[in-house]
Amino acid sequence: MNKFRSNHLKLSLSLLALFICLILPLAADEGMWPYNLVPKDYLAKKYNFKATDEWLNHLRFASVRFGGASASFVSPDGLVLTNHHVGRGAIQNLSTPERDLVKNGFYARTRAEELKCRGVELSVLQGIEDVTDRVFSAEKPGMSAQEIMAAREKAISEIQKEASDKTGLRCQVVSLYSGSMYNLYKYKTYNDVRLVFAVEDAIAFFGGDPDNFTYPRYDLDISIFRVYENDQPLKTKDYLKWSTTPLKEGDLVFCSGNPGSTGRLLTYDQLLFLRDVSYPFTINNLKRRQAILHEYATRGPEQERIASNTIFGVENSLKATTGYQSGLIDKDLMAKKLAEEQQIRQAIAANPELAKEFGQAWDEIAQAQKEFASFFKQYQFFERGNAFNTTYFNLAKSLIRMAEAKGSQNRPPMAEAGRMMGFMSQINDDFEIWKLTDSLKQLKEELPEEQETKWLLGCQSPEEVAMSLITGTKLKDPEFRKKLMEGGSEAIYQSNDPMIKLALMIDPVARGLRERHENKVRAVEVKNGTLVARALFQLKGTSIPPDATGTLRLSFGVVKGYIENGKKIPFHTTLAGLYQKAQKFNYQPPYSLPEKWIQKKSSLNLNTSLNFVATIDSIGGNSGSPVVNRKGEFVGALFDGNIQSLPTRFVYEEKVSRSVMVDGQALIEALIKIYDARPLADELLGRLPTR
Amino acid sequence: MNKFRSNHLKLSLSLLALFICLILPLAADEGMWPYNLVPKDYLAKKYNFKATDEWLNHLRFASVRFGGASASFVSPDGLVLTNHHVGRGAIQNLSTPERDLVKNGFYARTRAEELKCRGVELSVLQGIEDVTDRVFSAEKPGMSAQEIMAAREKAISEIQKEASDKTGLRCQVVSLYSGSMYNLYKYKTYNDVRLVFAVEDAIAFFGGDPDNFTYPRYDLDISIFRVYENDQPLKTKDYLKWSTTPLKEGDLVFCSGNPGSTGRLLTYDQLLFLRDVSYPFTINNLKRRQAILHEYATRGPEQERIASNTIFGVENSLKATTGYQSGLIDKDLMAKKLAEEQQIRQAIAANPELAKEFGQAWDEIAQAQKEFASFFKQYQFFERGNAFNTTYFNLAKSLIRMAEAKGSQNRPPMAEAGRMMGFMSQINDDFEIWKLTDSLKQLKEELPEEQETKWLLGCQSPEEVAMSLITGTKLKDPEFRKKLMEGGSEAIYQSNDPMIKLALMIDPVARGLRERHENKVRAVEVKNGTLVARALFQLKGTSIPPDATGTLRLSFGVVKGYIENGKKIPFHTTLAGLYQKAQKFNYQPPYSLPEKWIQKKSSLNLNTSLNFVATIDSIGGNSGSPVVNRKGEFVGALFDGNIQSLPTRFVYEEKVSRSVMVDGQALIEALIKIYDARPLADELLGRLPTR
Repeated sequence: MNKFRSNHLKLSLSLLALFICLILPLAADEGMWPYNLVPKDYLAKKYNFKATDEWLNHLRFASVRFGGASASFVSPDGLVLTNHHVGRGAIQNLSTPERDLVKNGFYARTRAEELKCRGVELSVLQGIEDVTDRVFSAEKPGMSAQEIMAAREKAISEIQKEASDKTGLRCQVVSLYSGSMYNLYKYKTYNDVRLVFAVEDAIAFFGGDPDNFTYPRYDLDISIFRVYENDQPLKTKDYLKWSTTPLKEGDLVFCSGNPGSTGRLLTYDQLLFLRDVSYPFTINNLKRRQAILHEYATRGPEQERIASNTIFGVENSLKATTGYQSGLIDKDLMAKKLAEEQQIRQAIAANPELAKEFGQAWDEIAQAQKEFASFFKQYQFFERGNAFNTTYFNLAKSLIRMAEAKGSQNRPPMAEAGRMMGFMSQINDDFEIWKLTDSLKQLKEELPEEQETKWLLGCQSPEEVAMSLITGTKLKDPEFRKKLMEGGSEAIYQSNDPMIKLALMIDPVARGLRERHENKVRAVEVKNGTLVARALFQLKGTSIPPDATGTLRLSFGVVKGYIENGKKIPFHTTLAGLYQKAQKFNYQPPYSLPEKWIQKKSSLNLNTSLNFVATIDSIGGNSGSPVVNRKGEFVGALFDGNIQSLPTRFVYEEKVSRSVMVDGQALIEALIKIYDARPLADELLGRLPTR
Repeated sequence: MNKFRSNHLKLSLSLLALFICLILPLAADEGMWPYNLVPKDYLAKKYNFKATDEWLNHLRFASVRFGGASASFVSPDGLVLTNHHVGRGAIQNLSTPERDLVKNGFYARTRAEELKCRGVELSVLQGIEDVTDRVFSAEKPGMSAQEIMAAREKAISEIQKEASDKTGLRCQVVSLYSGSMYNLYKYKTYNDVRLVFAVEDAIAFFGGDPDNFTYPRYDLDISIFRVYENDQPLKTKDYLKWSTTPLKEGDLVFCSGNPGSTGRLLTYDQLLFLRDVSYPFTINNLKRRQAILHEYATRGPEQERIASNTIFGVENSLKATTGYQSGLIDKDLMAKKLAEEQQIRQAIAANPELAKEFGQAWDEIAQAQKEFASFFKQYQFFERGNAFNTTYFNLAKSLIRMAEAKGSQNRPPMAEAGRMMGFMSQINDDFEIWKLTDSLKQLKEELPEEQETKWLLGCQSPEEVAMSLITGTKLKDPEFRKKLMEGGSEAIYQSNDPMIKLALMIDPVARGLRERHENKVRAVEVKNGTLVARALFQLKGTSIPPDATGTLRLSFGVVKGYIENGKKIPFHTTLAGLYQKAQKFNYQPPYSLPEKWIQKKSSLNLNTSLNFVATIDSIGGNSGSPVVNRKGEFVGALFDGNIQSLPTRFVYEEKVSRSVMVDGQALIEALIKIYDARPLADELLGRLPTR
């Protein structure tokens, strides 16, 4: 895969020698690997496992992207299994006050009962193509950081368009190793997705926020959908067969999903920026949102239902971010990062030729962090929409961006267009006013002197402004959105809709901040990140894994407990443990159990494995990922990491960091004994032709 | 010149016959003629005048565009003569409180004393090329009005760019006969322009506003500049020799200048729109501005000096607009227009084939007028900037438009870029606050419910907002403007300058109104205006003159008095008349005379002709135009029309409508006897080699 132009290959032999001294042995089972870079030799050597193309292709075609997360085909008739929390939005959209599917769960006894989910789109990776040469060839000597980025982006945009036009697939160029490698990913998409089965929220999220990111754990975090094509269930040979063999400690397992983002190639200064600027802001912000959402939820059961999904998302993010931050606050981890970086930089500084090529990269990145810190708050409030915490503002902003992109080269993907025109999650205006009011208050507190703040809140209270915006906007009407979308900039600029007007008023300052970020921060990071990565990459080639980028990856590890505070934590939990924990907390939320689970306890095999852990390298976005054994059989669905796994965003660790899975055995046991859903269990087990 | 594609030539013979019956004999000396369409046969027949190419080319090359008005070369060393009121802005920019050149006049006794005018650009038409075919070929069958307009504009833009790149000249495609003909005009430009001579304001504008657009008249409305190239006076053979023969009634004279805009091909409904919507708005608006400007001027002599040029411009526009409106209010004139139009439309309706081609044109234009009326006020306030009456807002708006145009095909002409970066008229912040305050008041009165009004004026008074905008903006600093211009959209969107922020806030609504006007009004007018014009044009060809478009035209007529209220008005006035009128008004402003004129009266030949009138067809923009005799010698400079000439914007008339000229004889007399400027007089008369 070493497809770099020769002028980038300037590492002298002396530096190579030096680097080799610095390199630690490849950290054990580290890596969320693109399917074209899977370390087959390593797997063969360490695990005596032969990752054949056939085995890999089958797993890849069975892997499904579900929103920003993961899922898999688990039957020849298009059943798709994911976490309950991944399918939660779709389930909530099918709910009403009278029929709360999130709370009560759902099971379609016949295909006719399967519920069509609007606005859900699944995609499956069809192929990967290396386009590094073509992207790099856009770059000319003497270009500035900004020009390099623009040139690359133009090339990427052209490659994507060509490939889409040619294949009819959704095509995306992925930047790997901080822009040292570019791969073209092609996806087939499915839009007719129907809900087949969902557990009750109480068992899906047993332990609630207190237990989130912890282990031992007792969650049946599962929902099941079915993909249709032409109104018929999708027929596929690439689905995962169900393993009926219980897992044992030490078993090799694989995970195939879409990890979102890691920062293991970031420089020390980039980590400092996250630790001192970005994460503190995000954590404070999420805490504030958590508080106002809970306040809303306490106003009544209907409010609780409406807010629950948002609360879940906010608390999930809060715990994740706090976890990531815990790694950065860890003095030892940071000292280790710094020492490694300093060794490399000193070696480079000692060689004039290398100093010229790579010497400035770290300092320029550090400078970019300072620059970003200087406008980070404005950027979050205006460009990232932090000041306008309502779905309507996001809609308005998207419509404006789409109108402006119209006619230009980079048309927005049709999926976005479809979402604009068609179905949106149910929006509750009372809830939107509540959220928007608080974010406007926050704007007034944090950025009182900005002109936009003064225009918007100069003579009306946040409550008044939020009320008038939300009650005044017509964006809830899909027909209205469609008209605006089709009308393009003419319709947008002439609209009197107050939310469109607001988004237009904010648009210039948002653009300014976006351009400043892109040109003065991101371009510098991209250019210099590539330099930093090229040094490392030239040494180790693809034996070091690239950072996660939200695209399909394969990771692996062994089923294994760990030691915490001197205590052995077992590799799995059982149904018995679930009932013990519920009892310990007197069946009070978030440790309450659904009625059925209490009534049918006696019918269950309580020794059934419920959750298990493995040293699989994963991160947010992996939720719902299928976990398979050597035979490629489904053994579970990843749904979380323990709290020790969070700092692995920046540094891999496998002593105590674990991914947490729902065991497939528990699902089958519950389908049959609790949910009276033997036909579905049989379809998963392949025991009946089809239902 | 009949360069139309054959599919536009569908006039049947029967209709032609009918039309020919309708056609009145070509109205006498009507016409402001493009140099490539001069009616040579008519001139030969009626006046026994042979308009040779040599004669025409010489006059064309001696004709100079000065701002939006006219001027001419009058010496082989680059002297340029124009009206005082045309040069007034440049003269005022050279003035200070200590040296008021507008009030006191100026004469450079040596070349070294000539004062360089910043921001003045003169241009001379080098050639005209027919590009009708190419523009029309962009139009495809089945296109909407909007698409046709866009296609033509794209073609025009390409033609202009190609020609500019090829010749290095400023190139502009001019639409003639409502888009029935397109000609490419190429201009050479001059930027080093120096003030040589200016009379005192009191004699230039003797009679002031009361006498503006009247006759008999007594103004020496003259200023003289010199063009330099490479710091040397421009040497040119194409200058006008000075006539020393006094004019007599009946003499044939020609006028070469840049008449701005006539509407003689407008439909009846377009005239109704002007009469009932556009002109009433403009007149009220100008009256309001006139009042607040006078209020400002009464605050002190310095305020009077600062406001004087603006007052002059507003009052000039007010008188002109009122004059145009007087034609539209004239029931006979309107009835005549309507009758003519109805005859044509009935004839078309009677023939199905013609009805299909032309029948809808008038109705569609009528519909566009209704559409425009529905948003005319918003359009004026937001898109035309009526709400923000300050130079700074115009600067901010231009900077934004330029930033947005950057990178797109239609770059702004470099002249605009130059103006942005470089010299601007002196701006007085106190005056700007005064003007802006009132226009903001007006916005609040007229459009209180618009979101933009509420944001801007919701909790602060117009005074406060104007004060904070004007004192806050840094746009007065040319370096700051230059930085913003060079920084493009990134710099603009990130600017914290309050005036830039305001213009950005207004930009979306302004764009919406602009797009609505372009697509729903102008495109309909262009498409259907072409149809209406094609009918007429096919009948008479270029024997009917096209409407004025601000480009160089030749018109002609005879020196001739007229009858008003039964009284014979003489063809010229004399210096004697000037003194009589001054005395009649006790030498009180605006009938006061400069000190020198009083002291040196006795030295003058009081029979010298001062102003004269002729039946020359002209309109605003012709100010400063050279008027020449059969030999092509300079006999005077057009500076006004009588009040009866104003309705000729829409209908030509020559019984009482007259253009008013300064007689060249009076200038020579004054230069020698009053201004002690014999060297300059000699240069004009060609009596000395050069000074």
